[in-house]
Amino acid sequence: MTDITIDPALVEAMIMEMGAIGAHSGTGVWRTVYSPEWVAANDLYASWGEEAGLAVSRDAVGNVWAKLAGSEGGKSIVSGSHIDTQTPGGRYDGTLGALSALIALKVLKAQFGQPKRTLEAVSLCEEEGSRFPSANFWGARAITGAIHQGDAETTRGFDGETMAEAMRAIALDPAKIATAQRDDIESFVELHIEQGPILEHADLPVAIVDAITGLRHYRVTLTGEQNHAGAFPMDLRRDPMAGFAEIASGVINTAHRLGRPAVTTIGRVEVNPNGAAVVPREVRFTIDVRHPHPEQGQALYRLHENLMREVAERRGLAIEWDIGIEKAPCLSDPALVSTFREAAVDQGVPTLTMASGAGHDTQQMARIAKTVMIFVRSKDGRSHTPEEFSSIPDIVAGIKVLAAGLYKLAY
Amino acid sequence: MTDITIDPALVEAMIMEMGAIGAHSGTGVWRTVYSPEWVAANDLYASWGEEAGLAVSRDAVGNVWAKLAGSEGGKSIVSGSHIDTQTPGGRYDGTLGALSALIALKVLKAQFGQPKRTLEAVSLCEEEGSRFPSANFWGARAITGAIHQGDAETTRGFDGETMAEAMRAIALDPAKIATAQRDDIESFVELHIEQGPILEHADLPVAIVDAITGLRHYRVTLTGEQNHAGAFPMDLRRDPMAGFAEIASGVINTAHRLGRPAVTTIGRVEVNPNGAAVVPREVRFTIDVRHPHPEQGQALYRLHENLMREVAERRGLAIEWDIGIEKAPCLSDPALVSTFREAAVDQGVPTLTMASGAGHDTQQMARIAKTVMIFVRSKDGRSHTPEEFSSIPDIVAGIKVLAAGLYKLAY
Repeated sequence: MTDITIDPALVEAMIMEMGAIGAHSGTGVWRTVYSPEWVAANDLYASWGEEAGLAVSRDAVGNVWAKLAGSEGGKSIVSGSHIDTQTPGGRYDGTLGALSALIALKVLKAQFGQPKRTLEAVSLCEEEGSRFPSANFWGARAITGAIHQGDAETTRGFDGETMAEAMRAIALDPAKIATAQRDDIESFVELHIEQGPILEHADLPVAIVDAITGLRHYRVTLTGEQNHAGAFPMDLRRDPMAGFAEIASGVINTAHRLGRPAVTTIGRVEVNPNGAAVVPREVRFTIDVRHPHPEQGQALYRLHENLMREVAERRGLAIEWDIGIEKAPCLSDPALVSTFREAAVDQGVPTLTMASGAGHDTQQMARIAKTVMIFVRSKDGRSHTPEEFSSIPDIVAGIKVLAAGLYKLAY
Repeated sequence: MTDITIDPALVEAMIMEMGAIGAHSGTGVWRTVYSPEWVAANDLYASWGEEAGLAVSRDAVGNVWAKLAGSEGGKSIVSGSHIDTQTPGGRYDGTLGALSALIALKVLKAQFGQPKRTLEAVSLCEEEGSRFPSANFWGARAITGAIHQGDAETTRGFDGETMAEAMRAIALDPAKIATAQRDDIESFVELHIEQGPILEHADLPVAIVDAITGLRHYRVTLTGEQNHAGAFPMDLRRDPMAGFAEIASGVINTAHRLGRPAVTTIGRVEVNPNGAAVVPREVRFTIDVRHPHPEQGQALYRLHENLMREVAERRGLAIEWDIGIEKAPCLSDPALVSTFREAAVDQGVPTLTMASGAGHDTQQMARIAKTVMIFVRSKDGRSHTPEEFSSIPDIVAGIKVLAAGLYKLAY
């Protein structure tokens, strides 16, 4: 196939113009779903779609679609990502995938004309949950039919308003959410920044993602006996801090030893009573465990659970846990992985194939479509911060791979 | 010498009558310095002193003294403890030592008449800092001259009032605090509940205390790199939680391995940002380290500091600490330890000799007098709670040892 030609100056201009909407703390962006900034960003996205000669429409939750109809009809091949941000996030997380899809379709239309298969770019309305903490993947969930009647009335934001109120304030009707559901999407391709350091350490611009990690959040309570820090000898203590420290070291070392892509994180700890001179009564903590391969993930969960039980029993501590979040791994479609790896080779873009350790809209879309993701290198592996950054050459390489893969699928 | 005769019924009646003043949550007591309950408790203490034929006086901070003058004059031999409580505490912590001194002097006077040396019992006005958090040992510090002009005006309680206001409200004049200073105390003997489980585990009623522990509070900040819990591989993390867990396990194991009386406690932990899906940026924690022997305590501090430096360096973490509280060990007077051990043998009371892991008024009094303490067994090693309990037979055994030792010193 012919080379895909992407204009770096256009890409940079679009990123900067979009990043100016909700600009915050220098290089940051604060653009929560249904806010004035979000409305302006989607209006800009729609206007760019129209300028590119795509058929623009909006659905009941505010996802913006830009379609390049195929001559043979049939189910669509869709690419995109979310336009909302963290508070504040940066210019790239989510937005880059929405813009890349639009740029890819614009370039494909300009270079190759009408495809056989229908291509669509989409700006998904909300993924982060940064205004409504329980509403993440709202846009993708509307498309897959995973929002139930009444959810918008009971979903409340950090400021107390309901999702339904926020929708009505910008003339969206929550009663119509079900109409956003699609059953005509064959494939969904999401370009996203990596949010981790793997590409940077490998000195590569782009990755093809073959799985999104499965994860489990344990919420653990370890209970011992509260005692005076001076008057109670070490040998008579039932100290939940000692047990916690052993468990934390153990689960972190286990994941480290298993090696990539296994990860385990202790991010949250609460101690009761949390006084300097008191052996605590209770330590509560979370364990975030992730693995993209179903069986190895289950094995990792079992290793952690066995360690927790063993430490608690040996130290005379009571232990309880429940599981706050559980997500099965989301495997990419093997044929799509091959297609996009070949597209990268065709375009001379060196890649590696990796799993995503973070969650994405793609996981939702996988309920109704075959999926794959493309990652673009993140500086210092950072995201969800104004400091997140991906270079224009890396982004252009990513869009080339995206466009070339879409070409293989649609032309 | 003759047996000391202590009436268990009288002891129990006095403990219960005193415990009724400020009674709280069943068996608890809530009696903070200069409160109406504190005033009533000291009035009762004074009236009991007068009934016993002792010369009762009060000093400028409200310590109540009950004196049995000796025929030979000279410096006093004093016994007592604090009458204020935690919020709530129990019937025994502090109060038992004040009452035991009064009972001992009453019994000695009744059984043996006037001593050669002057004996005094004292109800110290405040030790816990439970109303004025920075004012602990207020009563003992007044006696040793450690309260500076103006301290009462700048010392604020949890409710915002100053110590000076609280004193004036019960007709004490803060300008006269300096007059409470004493330079005529030769020895100070404090009976106190153990507050730990050592006597219970040894199945003994009473201990002679040969040292009060030295202690150091480290306030440590361990800083790494905040990262996404999914997207950052274990091998590239600089995770302060991993470092904290290793340090916490290490310092706890070091103290455990050294054996009694070394203790090390991690009681307080704060994680930033403390989110389940975030590798933290920072873990702040305290380390409470105690040892009653000066050189071994210094060695323990060095072991902990070496471990902290080593772990931080190996894991690429920044570490900083300062020392919040530092107290040198307070060694009991060896001759007094011998005297009270012999007194226990004379009275047929089995004892062990141990260090105190908690702080006491005795540490303050050691600035101006030779000191020793007597511990009475605590049920389950508990204190600072309504559930604290010591049995009447154990308490009677403790008072016998106290009275017999005072007899050896004063008659």
